[in-house]
Amino acid sequence: MSVTAEHVREVFQRYCALVTAGDADAVAALYAEDAVVEDPVGSEPHRGRDAIRAFYRASAGSVTLELEGRVRVAGSHGAGAMVARPKVDPSVRVETLDVMTFDDAGLVTSMRAYWSADTIVRE
Amino acid sequence: MSVTAEHVREVFQRYCALVTAGDADAVAALYAEDAVVEDPVGSEPHRGRDAIRAFYRASAGSVTLELEGRVRVAGSHGAGAMVARPKVDPSVRVETLDVMTFDDAGLVTSMRAYWSADTIVRE
Repeated sequence: MSVTAEHVREVFQRYCALVTAGDADAVAALYAEDAVVEDPVGSEPHRGRDAIRAFYRASAGSVTLELEGRVRVAGSHGAGAMVARPKVDPSVRVETLDVMTFDDAGLVTSMRAYWSADTIVRE
Repeated sequence: MSVTAEHVREVFQRYCALVTAGDADAVAALYAEDAVVEDPVGSEPHRGRDAIRAFYRASAGSVTLELEGRVRVAGSHGAGAMVARPKVDPSVRVETLDVMTFDDAGLVTSMRAYWSADTIVRE
């Protein structure tokens, strides 16, 4: 298991910045070729980097995404609370939390995002 | 899927209070009979309520456990960042994050805790 805690934390940071910037290609490049994204948990997963890229092309850039607190790391797993705010209405606070698993090359093999209508707060 | 977001959040609150109080029996009662606990992620899971009770008997009561931020809920899943501080040395801050899945009766069927030596901070 060659992934370091520093790498996991850096990927979470980069993920937030790239989603905010709307750079779907760069977000997809964080993932392994056969990665699986389930966002939100309970929805149909996106399987493979092409499907993942298409998912982010449809969604990235519409929100600002920031970490809330420090990312927790356990071996090749990372988990971090986040807040997403729609750029069209930053008073809406979508409280989400992503769990990612990494391969030895440092690429993300799975991502699950925990959020729902129950975690949306209007400020 | 009959579990509500309110129930999920209440169980997370109760879980923290009961772990802090050292009430292993009450913690075990939050779990379904065939639940699985992996704490930390990557360690050997505790399978079944009896094994889970034994795990908490050996560990509960030694730390104060508090939620950090709001629990994220997605259907029958909850995820919440937490901070555990050893009662013998509260300057040590163990940053953890629990993901729990619930059955229709509101019992926890799986818990995975994301923490490691990399998430321990000395203040």
